[in-house]
Amino acid sequence: MASNESDSVPTSTTTHTPDPSRRDFLHTAAASAAVFAFDHGAASPFLLKDDRAAVLAQVATQHDATLAMLREWIALPSIAAENLNYPQGPEHMAKLARDAGFQHVEVVPTAGKGGVFATLDAGAPTWLAIYMMYDVKQYDPSEWSSPPLEGRLVDRPGVGKVLVGRGATNSKGPQAACLAALNAFKAANAKLPVNLVLICEGEEEIGSPNFRQIAFKPEVQAALSKCIGIIIPLGNQDLDGSVQVNLGAKGIVELELVSSGEKWGRGPKLDVHSSLAAQVDSPAWHLVQALNTLVKPDGHTPAVAGFFDKVRPLTSAQRRILATSIPRKSEASAKKSLGVEHWIANESWHDSLLRLVSQPTINIEGLVGGYTGPGGKTILPNRAVAKIDMRLVPDMTAAGTLALLKAHLRKHGFGDIAVNMTGGYDPTETPADSKLVKAMIATYSKSGIEPLLWPRLAGSWPGATFTAPPLKLPAGPFGLGHGGGAHAPNEYWVIEPANSKVAGMDGAARSFVEFFYALA
Amino acid sequence: MASNESDSVPTSTTTHTPDPSRRDFLHTAAASAAVFAFDHGAASPFLLKDDRAAVLAQVATQHDATLAMLREWIALPSIAAENLNYPQGPEHMAKLARDAGFQHVEVVPTAGKGGVFATLDAGAPTWLAIYMMYDVKQYDPSEWSSPPLEGRLVDRPGVGKVLVGRGATNSKGPQAACLAALNAFKAANAKLPVNLVLICEGEEEIGSPNFRQIAFKPEVQAALSKCIGIIIPLGNQDLDGSVQVNLGAKGIVELELVSSGEKWGRGPKLDVHSSLAAQVDSPAWHLVQALNTLVKPDGHTPAVAGFFDKVRPLTSAQRRILATSIPRKSEASAKKSLGVEHWIANESWHDSLLRLVSQPTINIEGLVGGYTGPGGKTILPNRAVAKIDMRLVPDMTAAGTLALLKAHLRKHGFGDIAVNMTGGYDPTETPADSKLVKAMIATYSKSGIEPLLWPRLAGSWPGATFTAPPLKLPAGPFGLGHGGGAHAPNEYWVIEPANSKVAGMDGAARSFVEFFYALA
Repeated sequence: MASNESDSVPTSTTTHTPDPSRRDFLHTAAASAAVFAFDHGAASPFLLKDDRAAVLAQVATQHDATLAMLREWIALPSIAAENLNYPQGPEHMAKLARDAGFQHVEVVPTAGKGGVFATLDAGAPTWLAIYMMYDVKQYDPSEWSSPPLEGRLVDRPGVGKVLVGRGATNSKGPQAACLAALNAFKAANAKLPVNLVLICEGEEEIGSPNFRQIAFKPEVQAALSKCIGIIIPLGNQDLDGSVQVNLGAKGIVELELVSSGEKWGRGPKLDVHSSLAAQVDSPAWHLVQALNTLVKPDGHTPAVAGFFDKVRPLTSAQRRILATSIPRKSEASAKKSLGVEHWIANESWHDSLLRLVSQPTINIEGLVGGYTGPGGKTILPNRAVAKIDMRLVPDMTAAGTLALLKAHLRKHGFGDIAVNMTGGYDPTETPADSKLVKAMIATYSKSGIEPLLWPRLAGSWPGATFTAPPLKLPAGPFGLGHGGGAHAPNEYWVIEPANSKVAGMDGAARSFVEFFYALA
Repeated sequence: MASNESDSVPTSTTTHTPDPSRRDFLHTAAASAAVFAFDHGAASPFLLKDDRAAVLAQVATQHDATLAMLREWIALPSIAAENLNYPQGPEHMAKLARDAGFQHVEVVPTAGKGGVFATLDAGAPTWLAIYMMYDVKQYDPSEWSSPPLEGRLVDRPGVGKVLVGRGATNSKGPQAACLAALNAFKAANAKLPVNLVLICEGEEEIGSPNFRQIAFKPEVQAALSKCIGIIIPLGNQDLDGSVQVNLGAKGIVELELVSSGEKWGRGPKLDVHSSLAAQVDSPAWHLVQALNTLVKPDGHTPAVAGFFDKVRPLTSAQRRILATSIPRKSEASAKKSLGVEHWIANESWHDSLLRLVSQPTINIEGLVGGYTGPGGKTILPNRAVAKIDMRLVPDMTAAGTLALLKAHLRKHGFGDIAVNMTGGYDPTETPADSKLVKAMIATYSKSGIEPLLWPRLAGSWPGATFTAPPLKLPAGPFGLGHGGGAHAPNEYWVIEPANSKVAGMDGAARSFVEFFYALA
């Protein structure tokens, strides 16, 4: 997931990691875990039908080949921001799809980097879509303990034997697990229990600017329309093995509020000496006063006119899910890992989690203006910026909420403050009773994990492309396994876990095998 | 002057430089200038008495020696922050004083770097004190166009032949001009018309933390008490030759307001994912709300309770000075150079200058918190900081105003926000009818410059050490000449000006000769 697109947060039971890096929910979403083992020999705990035993056994047999496939993929980093390895990246993605048995594979040109569209018709009654990204985040080799393109296997204390490389967990490791599952079906000469649509892009890390050109190409859209849902391969396990299944996610608008003398027509057009504060208006004070109108005196409730007009209250079904799931979440561990002593308004754990799920927010991500170094510097800055994100719940929209904010600023005399949206998308919802979600839960449960069901992630991801009209597909991440360090140095993906409740590379692949059967 | 101590602004007639670097007032203070020449041969335009002609002529004779003295001094940078060249710095300062004819010269130890105290008793009826600093600001040679310790002579377009080096204008060039004047008296075997007390420090650039240990050492204080005032050698000319004489300066308090989850006991103790804005209080919003209480809705008038209680209105004498001086200042050029279209509250030039002189202020120097890089990052920061300066007019004090601010924050529910003062000092005042000011004006006028008299600099400098009890000395910068780039790369001091209205190195030295005679 790109830093400008996917954006989520753990809401785990026991290891509420406060690491704010994006996409971490995808690596830390958690639930209480039962005792089981993924990588201890073949998947004997499972009750086998059809070709399943052969396919699951094949995953272990092809372990070295899967690892080689992943390492080869990591050695070819496509980075859109650097125009690196295009068209090699999409061509390699297409090759991986062909190798995995997709019958129709094509590179889809866009105004930017090409995507890949592929289909695998197994003659099954059910179609499933899979989203993949073949691009990765930039990296600085000097910050890494091993070469970021080598895919070196190292022992990570408390985690196990991991593969270190750019893209290891975001997202080549989990995607390779999904492809390995398909390779196992092919090698075992077993019939896939579902048909597949694969849709891949190579600009995820720059915000998927052209993704809709791929998804809504007529034949792609037609193929997606046949699907019962779409999954994003991901290592969803926390280090304790737990998994959370989210039935939706808040939307988000990220923006900068820029107060400048230039645009205001008051104050200076460049930084001036601070003694002039007696003579010259201050864009920084102007920004502070504008910001102050955005939330109520409680310091958190949005005060933008109309902000709550489209907020749909939680349904009774959502409340029932919360009633079941909230008791499984540990307030003490959440407070400890977040470094928080009190929730907003001193609410109870229960009420604060209701608020987390249901309330839209206006957050200050950052403030920057004038002199920001050590000590002071006597300037009156010509410009000050607040970096803001707004989290949206159904039926708010990114475009509608942005318009409300702009109207609010104009009405309060701050129409000169530039509102520069840098990213965002609408909220998503996926029904709990969808086949996709039921199959996820069944697969996790069969693996000995009772996933935590959660009505809505407070974080955000751009799933609305799929969940909104016209596609209206159930959508969400799926997969066992664990990785870390997305967008950071020493990114890793667990090959052989230290904790037997966590799936390794082969266990992750087997979770996809089981998922395909669960869907059928 | 140090970045943490001296801090002032130009209020010039025609070249209202908006460069916010400190101490710039000392290099740009300006007035309308008459036509005259400083460096065209000996100072024949002056009517000569006593030894004056010989001394003035000697300045030109010793030109090469003065230049060598300055370059040797620049080659020995004392930098307190780097503990560089101590005790060589004070020893060299002491040597320069002895060379200039001071009879008693001693290095004064302090808890930090030593100062120098010296006296020159010429048997004259009048004692004058001179302040010098022998330390300089740090520098990065890679940013300079010539080695910063070489003192290379280069042609600067529109300025003339200048000496480039760290300390060239801040403050070794002007101080060397003052010493050169004394050397000229000595070489000409002429009797000084005043007795001198020299007080020097070597920690000015780190905020003069131990200067009071020098100034209030009993024998130093006793010597200073005999003086009619104290001058700071400085190149006070703007590039058009103009000079401004300030009869005081605002005081200042510089501080950081730090809002943190740690201290607040609410919000997170480290940055957390921004989706948690629905559950966790935000130190950044807390800061915005605190800041919003500090100024009135007009965006500039301080709203801190009691802030104006000690503000002494302008006297009728000060208003008379302003009535004379304001018409000499160009609104159009000030607006142009500042990039300002409207003054506060759309006031007239006259009213805005009255406000500039008379109003205390609370200014935001900078805002910094959370993510400050390009685009956005979805965090809820645990900490946000506002860098503030408050400018004070008589009879406000730095300590008293700081206490008012803290009480205000407590009263409004922001007592958890840390108020970290990083520097500051009280306002200063020097009477217009003091011998010191009269002699300055007389000297400038005699040189063909009608200085602009100004009641109070809106900027600040730590003159209160001298002007406040117990010393209560008139104090201010004096000297012709021009330099630039204080604290910046390619700092320079004019040796031979392109504009004949500006004094070069020798003209600056002659201005001190004339000043000593004017005082006597």
